[in-house]
Amino acid sequence: MADNKKMVEDITSRDVDFAQWYTDIVKKAELADYSSVRGCMIVRPYGYAIWENIQKELDRRFKETGHENVYMPMLIPESLLQKEKDHVEGFAPEVAWVTHGGSEKLTERLCVRPTSETVFCDHYKDIIHSYRDLPKLYNQWCSVMRWEKTTRPFLRTAEFLWQEGHTMHATAEEAIQETEQMLNIYSSFAEEFLAIPVIKGKKTDKEKFAGAEATYTMEAMMHDGKALQSATSHFFGDGFAKAFGVEFTDKDNTLKNPHETSWGISTRIIGGLIMVHGDDNGLVLPPMIAPTQLMVIPVMQHKEGVLDKAYEVLESVNKYCRAKIDASDKTPGWKFSECEMKGIPLRLELGPKDIENNKCVLVRRDTREKYFVALDELETKIPEILKDIQSSLYNKAKESLYSRIYDATTLEEAKDIADNKPGFMRAMWCGELECEMKMKDEVGVTSRCMPFDAEPISDTCICCGKKAKSLVFWGKAY
Amino acid sequence: MADNKKMVEDITSRDVDFAQWYTDIVKKAELADYSSVRGCMIVRPYGYAIWENIQKELDRRFKETGHENVYMPMLIPESLLQKEKDHVEGFAPEVAWVTHGGSEKLTERLCVRPTSETVFCDHYKDIIHSYRDLPKLYNQWCSVMRWEKTTRPFLRTAEFLWQEGHTMHATAEEAIQETEQMLNIYSSFAEEFLAIPVIKGKKTDKEKFAGAEATYTMEAMMHDGKALQSATSHFFGDGFAKAFGVEFTDKDNTLKNPHETSWGISTRIIGGLIMVHGDDNGLVLPPMIAPTQLMVIPVMQHKEGVLDKAYEVLESVNKYCRAKIDASDKTPGWKFSECEMKGIPLRLELGPKDIENNKCVLVRRDTREKYFVALDELETKIPEILKDIQSSLYNKAKESLYSRIYDATTLEEAKDIADNKPGFMRAMWCGELECEMKMKDEVGVTSRCMPFDAEPISDTCICCGKKAKSLVFWGKAY
Repeated sequence: MADNKKMVEDITSRDVDFAQWYTDIVKKAELADYSSVRGCMIVRPYGYAIWENIQKELDRRFKETGHENVYMPMLIPESLLQKEKDHVEGFAPEVAWVTHGGSEKLTERLCVRPTSETVFCDHYKDIIHSYRDLPKLYNQWCSVMRWEKTTRPFLRTAEFLWQEGHTMHATAEEAIQETEQMLNIYSSFAEEFLAIPVIKGKKTDKEKFAGAEATYTMEAMMHDGKALQSATSHFFGDGFAKAFGVEFTDKDNTLKNPHETSWGISTRIIGGLIMVHGDDNGLVLPPMIAPTQLMVIPVMQHKEGVLDKAYEVLESVNKYCRAKIDASDKTPGWKFSECEMKGIPLRLELGPKDIENNKCVLVRRDTREKYFVALDELETKIPEILKDIQSSLYNKAKESLYSRIYDATTLEEAKDIADNKPGFMRAMWCGELECEMKMKDEVGVTSRCMPFDAEPISDTCICCGKKAKSLVFWGKAY
Repeated sequence: MADNKKMVEDITSRDVDFAQWYTDIVKKAELADYSSVRGCMIVRPYGYAIWENIQKELDRRFKETGHENVYMPMLIPESLLQKEKDHVEGFAPEVAWVTHGGSEKLTERLCVRPTSETVFCDHYKDIIHSYRDLPKLYNQWCSVMRWEKTTRPFLRTAEFLWQEGHTMHATAEEAIQETEQMLNIYSSFAEEFLAIPVIKGKKTDKEKFAGAEATYTMEAMMHDGKALQSATSHFFGDGFAKAFGVEFTDKDNTLKNPHETSWGISTRIIGGLIMVHGDDNGLVLPPMIAPTQLMVIPVMQHKEGVLDKAYEVLESVNKYCRAKIDASDKTPGWKFSECEMKGIPLRLELGPKDIENNKCVLVRRDTREKYFVALDELETKIPEILKDIQSSLYNKAKESLYSRIYDATTLEEAKDIADNKPGFMRAMWCGELECEMKMKDEVGVTSRCMPFDAEPISDTCICCGKKAKSLVFWGKAY
């Protein structure tokens, strides 16, 4: 118990200093570490194993919907980046520039990709000629670089891992359908796998992606009530295709520009996992995404037969869940703490007395509830508890999200909510940038999204009182 | 048949111009394409699917042997690159330098990683303290950049995809064992999965990796008799650990530097696949690595029932092999050619007459042999033929390799072999750089490796006549 306390004492309490608590978890759960390059993180084995599980499940869903993986060059010539006006304005200030190859100065500087719309379009121009070549449904898993001023592991780093889908379609309708489909793939993945409920909607023009006609987003709420933009899906119309000269001969024998989408989710979502489910004892991982779902911990392992039995149990539970054993010479208390710190959903304690009685103890990470289970009942009990952890984490997060959505109809109400009630705020908006800026500057919240199919809560804009165009979710955001 | 000829006529014959044949295959089989950045390729869906199969199998073998995946920053500060003298000398001339972030000039320039020994060591210094922290067995899948003058898709590109393993061990013995183990994983993978036989051995000091104590390699022979260095595994001793200050307290309570290894295989191996198995009709893929192992091609698909039956057959064969259907409106002849160009191991032709007789035609890509098979026998016949293709491709490649290894004991013999007999040359060597350079400058071959456990073929060095230290495989190389 002394060990146990020691490890937990090393992390700041979540309610005392949320930002410090977050950093502590990232370090102590060995998810990521700082590197010698400003703003670039090292994704450690445990963090990377979570990313691999995210990749595996999403990649399956992408392929099921007809997408193919490719790999595009990581460097983009400056002239290519400049082909689409809004895009270059959005990204040029935050790219890293390669100016020399070996000892030679390059004739044109190259940026490390901040995103790859330009290189995909440049390639599509070469391979799309006829309606038969459409749709093109490409995706790539890679890292990208954005030279951010302030960085935090996972949430905002100069380099991060992500996937970026880039597709071309014969018609705008098809492209919009794709944009929606991909947002839905992200949101069902977040809800089913990560147990993170999200609000889906459209970004305002101010918040949309550089060069896009429309950006769809899913916004999750963190434990501190702040929003995390968790994945986005963009519809570009034919703007990029025109700028890059991507053309195809349609069935009616006329030359047209295809319509484009792009969509991405990044290692940022691991930050979301931490901040939605974690607690003062460390990380809490939903079983579906946990690299290790159950840890076998032998108690009094020096006693004859204990380790043998523990390995035997490990082998058998490994058939229906991802299990590991901690047979190191650390104390059981220390092992318990480590399991909690790493958010392993279930631990299985097995000592000489348990073996005598042919049973063991299961302890849930989320509720710390204990179960005394006969060894021959593990096969039904473990999957049952894992399933229950998954759904109860989701329900808890959903309750936490929906109990903290507040409606505001006046600026005074809005200010009161912003200052005193961490969470999302719903308010009507006229559609003008001026009012959006006023919410930012005077109330201190940014527009998160205009939710799909939302009922208006009043007829007038919260700022100017003119006719409202849409309901907006507002909030403080990461 | 006209279609068929047309497509094949588009590729240069392998024996007329091997280099052009190679480029034609890369383009026509849609494996890769050129990009707007000099020397950087676009890996297209079909090429990337091959890479994904390579990754999947190797990653499984890495994890089975206790390795964990991580992700390190892609940028390396110049000061970090310079910490190990030999290493920086080897790589500095060929790195791409980032000098600006956004509009600001960086205080220290950063290179895009050409390899990551330096960043791994920098991290290991922070996380290795005790013998309990060893071994560390890390690997990463990423892209690296080397600013090459002359480039060719897959074989030599400015940016390429690879994996790089970097491990730390308590003793030199353990590290050497790891270096050997990883070379063996590569070679068994190459032989079992890619059907590429290899010669394993140690590199000479001249050819070893910058900063390594020893480099192990596997060398494959291409159709034109030239060598392709296909994977390498390096033992570093404690040189990097010392340069980077990586230290641990050993069991005997003394402070020591751990011993390091690194090992990698890259998209270059896809070039090997092309050049070992391909022929004048296109790519030839071993079934184990082929993204599509069997293509169903309906014949006279406009006739009632043909497409339905073809999809039914597809569904059933998909249970035991990776199958697809080409139900496009192209002619069967064109589809056959495409299948051959893409090296799909088996095609299944199904027309109205076949359906009437409850049978179909299977055609092997490698030998073009035809089999008339009853539909209810496919389940035994297809796996049987795929297995046979796999082993006969391997046997053919092995025959091609071992029938072209020539022994030389005098420089005249060596020159004759180098000029007239494409393949590998075996000759004894004294161990001096001068003689190695003489082989290069006068004979026109480089040392490929000193094979493990080889019987000497004479007592004296082929160049200087002094006492020979080892047998060397020499050759022209990619």
